[in-house]
Amino acid sequence: MNDTITLRQPVVVDFASTAYARIKPVAVTAVELRGDFWGHRFATNLEQTLPSQWDLLESTGRLNNFRRVFGEYDGPFEGLFFNDSDLYKWLEAASWLVARGPNALLEQRIEEGITLIERAQGADGYIDSYFCLEREGERWTNLRDLHEMYVGGHLIQAAVANHRSTGQTRLLNIATRFADMLCSRFGPAAEGKIEAVDGHEEIEMALIELARETGQTRYLELARFFIRARGHGLLKGGRFGDAYYQDDVPFDQMENLAGHAVRALYMACGITDLYLETGDAKLLPRLETLWERLTAQRMYITGGVGSRHDGEAIGADYELPNGQAYTETCAAIASMMWCHRLLAATGNARYADLFEWTLYNGMLPGWSLDGREYYYVNPLEDDGGHRRQPWYHCACCPPNVARTLASLPGYVYGTDADAIYVHLYVESDAQVPLGERTVGLRQRTRYPWDGAIEITVDGEGEFSLKLRIPGWVDGSANLTTPAREAGGHAAEPGKTGLPVLTLNGVPLEAKPDSQGYVEIRRAWQHGDRIRLDLPMTVRVWQSHPKVAENRGRVALSRGPLLYCVERADMPGVDLDELYVDPTQIEASWKAEQLGGVVVLKAAAHRRSIGSSWSGALYRPMAQDGSNGSPDPATIVAIPYFAWHNRESGPMKVWLNYRGE
Amino acid sequence: MNDTITLRQPVVVDFASTAYARIKPVAVTAVELRGDFWGHRFATNLEQTLPSQWDLLESTGRLNNFRRVFGEYDGPFEGLFFNDSDLYKWLEAASWLVARGPNALLEQRIEEGITLIERAQGADGYIDSYFCLEREGERWTNLRDLHEMYVGGHLIQAAVANHRSTGQTRLLNIATRFADMLCSRFGPAAEGKIEAVDGHEEIEMALIELARETGQTRYLELARFFIRARGHGLLKGGRFGDAYYQDDVPFDQMENLAGHAVRALYMACGITDLYLETGDAKLLPRLETLWERLTAQRMYITGGVGSRHDGEAIGADYELPNGQAYTETCAAIASMMWCHRLLAATGNARYADLFEWTLYNGMLPGWSLDGREYYYVNPLEDDGGHRRQPWYHCACCPPNVARTLASLPGYVYGTDADAIYVHLYVESDAQVPLGERTVGLRQRTRYPWDGAIEITVDGEGEFSLKLRIPGWVDGSANLTTPAREAGGHAAEPGKTGLPVLTLNGVPLEAKPDSQGYVEIRRAWQHGDRIRLDLPMTVRVWQSHPKVAENRGRVALSRGPLLYCVERADMPGVDLDELYVDPTQIEASWKAEQLGGVVVLKAAAHRRSIGSSWSGALYRPMAQDGSNGSPDPATIVAIPYFAWHNRESGPMKVWLNYRGE
Repeated sequence: MNDTITLRQPVVVDFASTAYARIKPVAVTAVELRGDFWGHRFATNLEQTLPSQWDLLESTGRLNNFRRVFGEYDGPFEGLFFNDSDLYKWLEAASWLVARGPNALLEQRIEEGITLIERAQGADGYIDSYFCLEREGERWTNLRDLHEMYVGGHLIQAAVANHRSTGQTRLLNIATRFADMLCSRFGPAAEGKIEAVDGHEEIEMALIELARETGQTRYLELARFFIRARGHGLLKGGRFGDAYYQDDVPFDQMENLAGHAVRALYMACGITDLYLETGDAKLLPRLETLWERLTAQRMYITGGVGSRHDGEAIGADYELPNGQAYTETCAAIASMMWCHRLLAATGNARYADLFEWTLYNGMLPGWSLDGREYYYVNPLEDDGGHRRQPWYHCACCPPNVARTLASLPGYVYGTDADAIYVHLYVESDAQVPLGERTVGLRQRTRYPWDGAIEITVDGEGEFSLKLRIPGWVDGSANLTTPAREAGGHAAEPGKTGLPVLTLNGVPLEAKPDSQGYVEIRRAWQHGDRIRLDLPMTVRVWQSHPKVAENRGRVALSRGPLLYCVERADMPGVDLDELYVDPTQIEASWKAEQLGGVVVLKAAAHRRSIGSSWSGALYRPMAQDGSNGSPDPATIVAIPYFAWHNRESGPMKVWLNYRGE
Repeated sequence: MNDTITLRQPVVVDFASTAYARIKPVAVTAVELRGDFWGHRFATNLEQTLPSQWDLLESTGRLNNFRRVFGEYDGPFEGLFFNDSDLYKWLEAASWLVARGPNALLEQRIEEGITLIERAQGADGYIDSYFCLEREGERWTNLRDLHEMYVGGHLIQAAVANHRSTGQTRLLNIATRFADMLCSRFGPAAEGKIEAVDGHEEIEMALIELARETGQTRYLELARFFIRARGHGLLKGGRFGDAYYQDDVPFDQMENLAGHAVRALYMACGITDLYLETGDAKLLPRLETLWERLTAQRMYITGGVGSRHDGEAIGADYELPNGQAYTETCAAIASMMWCHRLLAATGNARYADLFEWTLYNGMLPGWSLDGREYYYVNPLEDDGGHRRQPWYHCACCPPNVARTLASLPGYVYGTDADAIYVHLYVESDAQVPLGERTVGLRQRTRYPWDGAIEITVDGEGEFSLKLRIPGWVDGSANLTTPAREAGGHAAEPGKTGLPVLTLNGVPLEAKPDSQGYVEIRRAWQHGDRIRLDLPMTVRVWQSHPKVAENRGRVALSRGPLLYCVERADMPGVDLDELYVDPTQIEASWKAEQLGGVVVLKAAAHRRSIGSSWSGALYRPMAQDGSNGSPDPATIVAIPYFAWHNRESGPMKVWLNYRGE
């Protein structure tokens, strides 16, 4: 492997030098997102999100906490004990962005941030402003609750991103000093070290990335130690019990992901990284089984994970309440990070499917159209009171969104020895390294609004282009993701729902292989033009009968986008009184609405609740349909990611379709 | 009023000397519960529950915490910071029991408990073993979180019960010393006192009872101060926000009961007590409105309250998940305590209805048939993992059940100037004081299994007997409780569903008055015999369409009992695959099962889920009924209070009735 080149490439996760990654990453700088959808959003992240977040890091005392450590600012520690991690995530985001080219303001702030950290770090490598200011004598005494390694993990991730993006070593050196301290202190008792784990996973994948970045295997070994030490009750319970911390059962006996959703998914990322580095044959089957069970039993149709406010937890099988969904934005991001790793490990497009579905329907709803407000919790139904905020006391989600958007170009493509994988369809220009050559790929598309994608290939010689046929397309094979489904009923009868593929105008068979990709292998000519038409059929989804709230209800999707209804489109209407007719749905482009969206209109009827229930909560079953006769109505649905960017009002994803 | 007599009577709540109580209480000692249902349970509480709880108070360090305060035992405080209250609730329960007659063992333990408290109490009246042992310098510094007044409130309630039951003043003196300290310290700033409230309500109703018991109005004034001071943000938020503590809005602007369920309901009890003492005209309409909204929008069909594990909170309107129901046993008891007070304030039988319904279906499920295990959380649906425990780290519920059962005789009857109210039907013998006379009342009935109730009246002169026609009976007028419902469909067609009443064999009209009672007024003769036949029709309940999990589902009840299905009666069957036919249900007595219960058998069909869903969580809507053809099946339902007294397995209250 060409270590020199791969180390210089700012890839999101560096699988380049491991034999167990079937798909290698492409640098974030190799792809430029364009167009009204992702080009616009990428710019919004750069121009609105990053600057406003920096101001909030400053105004909320997060930066001052560092200054207090080295005496440049007075007063006690401000905010939550793990607030340092917000700066780290911001630095990661900013690093991916400056990798693309000069940006004096961002670069200056990155330098300022790194200087704060550098000055606050102790001679022994320790850095955690909360402990330095509030609990100086108590380092490492409450790993269960106080997140020292979680915060340190984000420092390491920021440092790796900064090094990959800029080639500079200042932040990386800070991170390695911190990591070296961990290595000297934690590990097997037989080596005279402390056997412990952190209550909030994160350090594991961070250490493995640091090992990749530095070539130092001790970081990988420490990650392996933490992963193996977990599940044996080292954390000793606490209010929510061992399962909250994934400490109730060792990974090799784990039947389901459970407990705190973000922790569980960050853990899964770390273990997948461990598999990718070691090829440990026991790990991958269990990872895939856990993913299958999560997606088949415990995942919202948004791709979101986390059914309980109590313990921010993944629920039991089929426990998926809509209004009380927790579905933290960070959990959606964690799931995407895990999917990216599993895609590398297996080459199976089902992981790219869920990545894309969660990107649009799990993470994007957590970010306002103007790029300055966020959801922490993402319910699938709301009475009008749940509103995005510019920031949170616990602000883990906002900079997590920022770093994910900043690195999004790195998720579009992948490669193996002689193939380029097109994971995501997005208006973009790219220069993708493949062996010794570089292949230009120019995608022109209005996706996700339109299924027509034109890809111009600027490369020579024989290699394969592998096009993912998304799981949301009718007739694809994989059953386990929300987006993949065999057979079924399309809402626009008469359309076959199959994708259409041409190369330079000549039809090709668009049948995906067992991994979910259509392979086009040939000796390419400069300017070869591929056209893929994905059918943008409206899909009408039902839930498994054990999902209690969704009986008699359907959800609508079109392409990769899940839809919802909002009061703003149906003034004065109680959304609970509407029953959709799933056979009569039309899609139309509305350039003026919500920054430009495809809107769905469906025939419906409306049954008044109030007149028939008269204020009762329970009543004897009626012998006849005494709920009043239905009135004709129309339902307007918008993409779920765009909800609450207008006036306040109720929203719901799952719509009644069957009268009571 | 005859203060001498009322003070000697061990009534549960002493409304005897207030002009604003329309119905006066009858002493717990005036009624003897008999028969297989309540006679047996009353004995089980005395013989199993009380002794085993005392042993647990000892073995879990709750008694030792007191001993540690006065140096008779070593080591740090054990357990939760409000554990003292468990001893207080136990003492209250035991006091109601010894009021009935000599019980050497109980009396000895009461003495032992009082001695512990007496020795631990400070010279200034302060008593709280957690603070004395762990936070000596921090008294009253964290009223929001640390329950000092809540614990003190239970001390006062125990002392009042003990004084009423035994006439002894030892515990009452301890409580008044504590309360006097509160009076000297807390109150209006204009009086030089601290304006503060406790984060967990309880002290309010306790102080008012202490005022009733001692005749000292300063306790009433302090309760009034606490009630008025609440809702102005004195507690300053915390993790769950002001609403958790009912501190977000003053009572006179409160729109709904919300936040922590037990706190909200204890608050409501205290405010109702304040109304009863003061007649403040602004209080009662709001109390009744809050009760109506609670029962019409936020109450489980069990009578349980509390929809969220997160914050142990009352949910939003119609937020009533079944498996994730919190419905703490203490909240059911608190609701019963509130109903008892509202019944006294209004004379409206709807409060007695909900008291009874919650007794059978909200509290009783929290207590095992053998009297030695308890539920804290009472879900309406379970996968088989939720099991009663002999005790809890937070053990508020077990002694709360014990004190409620011990005082149950005091809830059967009430009186006004010349009427006796029969609130509860229960096999029993009673001697009810009515003015200068005492009336013997002998109830013979197999209620709740059978609706035939024979009451022999042993009294002379003219007065009224007022018989409650329960809200669960067809044709009663009140809509707002789960149990009261106008009209509707009875599952046994052909029966009118109306109660039948005779006096000495002569039919009387059984039409309730506007308050829900049938009044029989006459010059009574010794041995007059009333017979009331309440129709034990099986009721099939539907939920309001906004209760998301209950669409397409029904619940069954018979008489005052809600039913559920348990795997134990349908081995090997997935309960979610069963669809009940609500028109074919039969009831039958099973003497050998669960201590003797009426079981319901219903025709049903069964649709296999697994074969049609193939592991998918979401799928496109099927055009036809592809869920497989149904097989005929039978559903067996048992009273919900008796669930999980056999082998482990799934349980559900709300049954599918409509095929997917």
